[in-house]
Amino acid sequence: MEQRYPSQLLERAVSAFSQLPGIGRKTALRLVLFLLREPQETVTSFTHALSELKENIKFCKVCHNISDTEVCSICSDPRRDKSLICVVENVQDVMAIENTQQFHGLYHVLGGIISPMDGVGPHDLEIDSLVERVKSEGVEEVIFALSPTMEGDTTSFYISRKLEGSHVRLSVIARGISVGDELIYADEVTLGRSILNRTPMNK
Amino acid sequence: MEQRYPSQLLERAVSAFSQLPGIGRKTALRLVLFLLREPQETVTSFTHALSELKENIKFCKVCHNISDTEVCSICSDPRRDKSLICVVENVQDVMAIENTQQFHGLYHVLGGIISPMDGVGPHDLEIDSLVERVKSEGVEEVIFALSPTMEGDTTSFYISRKLEGSHVRLSVIARGISVGDELIYADEVTLGRSILNRTPMNK
Repeated sequence: MEQRYPSQLLERAVSAFSQLPGIGRKTALRLVLFLLREPQETVTSFTHALSELKENIKFCKVCHNISDTEVCSICSDPRRDKSLICVVENVQDVMAIENTQQFHGLYHVLGGIISPMDGVGPHDLEIDSLVERVKSEGVEEVIFALSPTMEGDTTSFYISRKLEGSHVRLSVIARGISVGDELIYADEVTLGRSILNRTPMNK
Repeated sequence: MEQRYPSQLLERAVSAFSQLPGIGRKTALRLVLFLLREPQETVTSFTHALSELKENIKFCKVCHNISDTEVCSICSDPRRDKSLICVVENVQDVMAIENTQQFHGLYHVLGGIISPMDGVGPHDLEIDSLVERVKSEGVEEVIFALSPTMEGDTTSFYISRKLEGSHVRLSVIARGISVGDELIYADEVTLGRSILNRTPMNK
């Protein structure tokens, strides 16, 4: 049965929260009532943090990672090895790999993987800019750190074809991660080892 | 290990979300990145719904339920039986009972229950206003619908003492085996009480 709310304002806030992934209307109500009991400043800083993020967030013009600046802190760090580029699907993957502290090169965030089922083709992804980076900069190795799924493999393969003739070494992170698992849920040791044990890509 | 974020704005939004009950930092990150991918209007309407709620929400001056108006829609409904008051702990309880469509009286939201362990005493709750209501209006019965715990029982008992001499009928919602529950899984206290408080069988 449809839950009736004693207030339109409450109803609207619950609806807003229940748009979020994994949040049902019961959980949404619990969260909204929690915020309602909190002091005004908590709610203000909550909404402020969100709108600030949405309005002011940038994506690094080199690697497309989330950033507060034009060029992200990783790309502008002189200690990072600019000859190594690790290709990942999204921002969470960058954070997961950074957490292992095993990788000291740069990243390239594709913004997704090729998935015809979801209507995502190569031109929806940051593939051209990757090819451009590899051509123009002193890149020696491109590491594919995509999810070990059909879509991930397809994407790696597509990009490897695009990079043909650029004399760059291509590698894939070791399949220490079980097939079908998502990168963000892998534990740090497995994920770190899979970067150290990357294998040359089969052509 | 502490997660490092590529952006201060992201970090702040994740922190804001992870203040919510039951939301850890990983879930918070997932929710924030979801909102980041949504169009600007979604985020605006999300933050707007929240600040509107916090700024404009009222609590009914009669029953203390959440309301958009001075007196809530239940208290101002002429079809509701004003001689019956159901005493509940919080707003969610009102919604749960309203959902059953079995109760047509009014409510009184205490805003909690007496719990010395949590530092909640009688004066933190809307008990005086309940006593006032019972005295001044034509109330015939007060139904206690509090949690069947030590704290709930203590609160019911405390209020019943406060209402002594007001010639109002006091009752407690029936406690027994849930509909659809199997007898063998019921706890001993509930099962024992359900035998003591057996009701005449409808013929």
